[in-house]
Amino acid sequence: METVAIIMAGGSGERFWPLSRQQRPKQLLRLTASGRTLVEETVERLSGVVSGEHIYVLTSAPLQALIRRTLPQVPPAHIIAEPVRRNTAACLVLAAAIVVERFGEPSRLLMAAFPSDHLVEPLEEFQRTLRAALQWAEQGEDIVTIGIPPVRPETGYGYLELGEELGEAEGVTVYRVRRFREKPSREVAEEFVNTGRFLWNSGMFFWRLDLFLRALEQHMPAFWSHWDLLRRLVRPWLEQPVEGAYPGLDAVFSAMPDVSIDYALAERAERIATVRASFRWDDLGAWDALERVFPPDSQGNVVSGEVVLLESQGCIALDARTHPRSIVTLLGLRDCVVVLTDDAILCCAKTHVQQVRGLVAYLREHGYEAVL
Amino acid sequence: METVAIIMAGGSGERFWPLSRQQRPKQLLRLTASGRTLVEETVERLSGVVSGEHIYVLTSAPLQALIRRTLPQVPPAHIIAEPVRRNTAACLVLAAAIVVERFGEPSRLLMAAFPSDHLVEPLEEFQRTLRAALQWAEQGEDIVTIGIPPVRPETGYGYLELGEELGEAEGVTVYRVRRFREKPSREVAEEFVNTGRFLWNSGMFFWRLDLFLRALEQHMPAFWSHWDLLRRLVRPWLEQPVEGAYPGLDAVFSAMPDVSIDYALAERAERIATVRASFRWDDLGAWDALERVFPPDSQGNVVSGEVVLLESQGCIALDARTHPRSIVTLLGLRDCVVVLTDDAILCCAKTHVQQVRGLVAYLREHGYEAVL
Repeated sequence: METVAIIMAGGSGERFWPLSRQQRPKQLLRLTASGRTLVEETVERLSGVVSGEHIYVLTSAPLQALIRRTLPQVPPAHIIAEPVRRNTAACLVLAAAIVVERFGEPSRLLMAAFPSDHLVEPLEEFQRTLRAALQWAEQGEDIVTIGIPPVRPETGYGYLELGEELGEAEGVTVYRVRRFREKPSREVAEEFVNTGRFLWNSGMFFWRLDLFLRALEQHMPAFWSHWDLLRRLVRPWLEQPVEGAYPGLDAVFSAMPDVSIDYALAERAERIATVRASFRWDDLGAWDALERVFPPDSQGNVVSGEVVLLESQGCIALDARTHPRSIVTLLGLRDCVVVLTDDAILCCAKTHVQQVRGLVAYLREHGYEAVL
Repeated sequence: METVAIIMAGGSGERFWPLSRQQRPKQLLRLTASGRTLVEETVERLSGVVSGEHIYVLTSAPLQALIRRTLPQVPPAHIIAEPVRRNTAACLVLAAAIVVERFGEPSRLLMAAFPSDHLVEPLEEFQRTLRAALQWAEQGEDIVTIGIPPVRPETGYGYLELGEELGEAEGVTVYRVRRFREKPSREVAEEFVNTGRFLWNSGMFFWRLDLFLRALEQHMPAFWSHWDLLRRLVRPWLEQPVEGAYPGLDAVFSAMPDVSIDYALAERAERIATVRASFRWDDLGAWDALERVFPPDSQGNVVSGEVVLLESQGCIALDARTHPRSIVTLLGLRDCVVVLTDDAILCCAKTHVQQVRGLVAYLREHGYEAVL
């Protein structure tokens, strides 16, 4: 059995503007204590489980060169550009076509899919959970996910409702997933956390490729209809680095629906299993996530760079300018986010961090494309 | 009767940091719709009442050259540097010594003292009130002030409690001042406004110099003891511009108490009159004053410079950088002040605008003298 890891690195991560940019989205930011980019961390935490030769990174054409430089341990031919921005379903169908073409017999291939821009720690617990997920997936009967025991009634995450215990793998409990529950209301989220029968959906998926192909045919006809063409298109380019997307891929990729793998497959398949994670996980969805990464000081502030705070509480202040020309001061502020880059400054109420994406859209429509 | 105007321009105005600086305090800022500095406006609104030859401006040595350039209509020899920072009492005693030495017989001299950093408009109403104050002061029996009908229960101002009506001058009502009331609590301020028997103390004073000298002898012994020495020190320098303070003035000026003219004289003298102003006045005490100068937009925001506001209300946003290198965005902010200069950025809750002075003190003590 060969394991191939697919890292999904096509996201735009606009909610970390002005630090995240079109040319430097969230997966290329250094948002954790390690000082490494999130995509680097994602690759490095596979070390010892999946070799670089068995890792593929799917991203967008504008990011391809930078990600190749960022990930020298992954062969350049494995850093692949999607021709247009699509959701995770199209990304993973393309990945599956590449893996089958490159490695052969689907029943001897395990595919493991990872988001590239989440916080995961510590390494040992992640790898223990990962090995359990891979071991369970090897049986070829379940699509396997990793579920995170929720530590707060988060309304921004999807939840997995647990069914019966299926057994153990590597000492980790595996459950049937009764169903996927999308982002709940506050009240529902509190109920989810209290019952103990719900886990956060980490967005990682594991499957044997023969099972995936059967599921593709059964549940994803709008993708399955492109399967043979996809395989023919990727075949000539497997061994050599391609600049930009594979030639000819644009039309077929654009024709696939713009939906998530959760929606297209996981919510429809009969047999989904989940492995209960023993690691800490955070999707780093917006600026306020930094409070969960970096411990706030005695006033509840998280500060990076030379910022003077006086009588301010619950603030996140980040000066990321390369050559700060001005001192930054916060006075009497409560629950605000202040972020400075060389060409943009954001002052945002913490209540509005989810609306940063809306601000980016506003800027795009009002002639500020240069700072996006 | 000759009228001599004294403009008190020694203030530091730290509450407008980072726009106000040690080298460019509030009186040198352009905070009103005219686009002129406050000290320029103060001089210009005397036009037609007091000639430039009869105007003296007292400031500090570091500001002297800049104020001379700012006020070409005032003879350079009349822009005088106080040797050390003192309050308004020492400033006006020094001014009186200069005026008596220069113009002679005190009973034929009217002295009119003006703060240099307040908002006053419109011109016609100011001059009408001014002429009334001068006419009443000419009698030589009262120290005359200008009282502003309060339009809100301001706790940051001093109030004048009115006694009986003394009469009229130029059609304006003149009252006896029963007493001075320092900055009141909110409840007391509301009572003051409701009774209609209180006016704001504008900080402008008018007196005949013979009356002032008798008051000096009677109420201000710690100043009167320096009077003869002061006159001798200023005598040689009356006609020529002096760079920095008059030679020898340092010791005697430092020896005078650091108190306001309100405290040293006005609160002690028996006969204080006040003229009820018909003009609009504001002391522009802190950043939130800008809302009273510039009409807020439909969201209650006052914006200057290229600032993008989204879902923000009640904010004051001012980009005063000479070469803005970054776009400034406010998202979801309520009642905040954001001010940018080339070397400093302030993000301040509107509730804390009075504490900007404390922030400046904090910066001075923590090695940020360069941005003060």
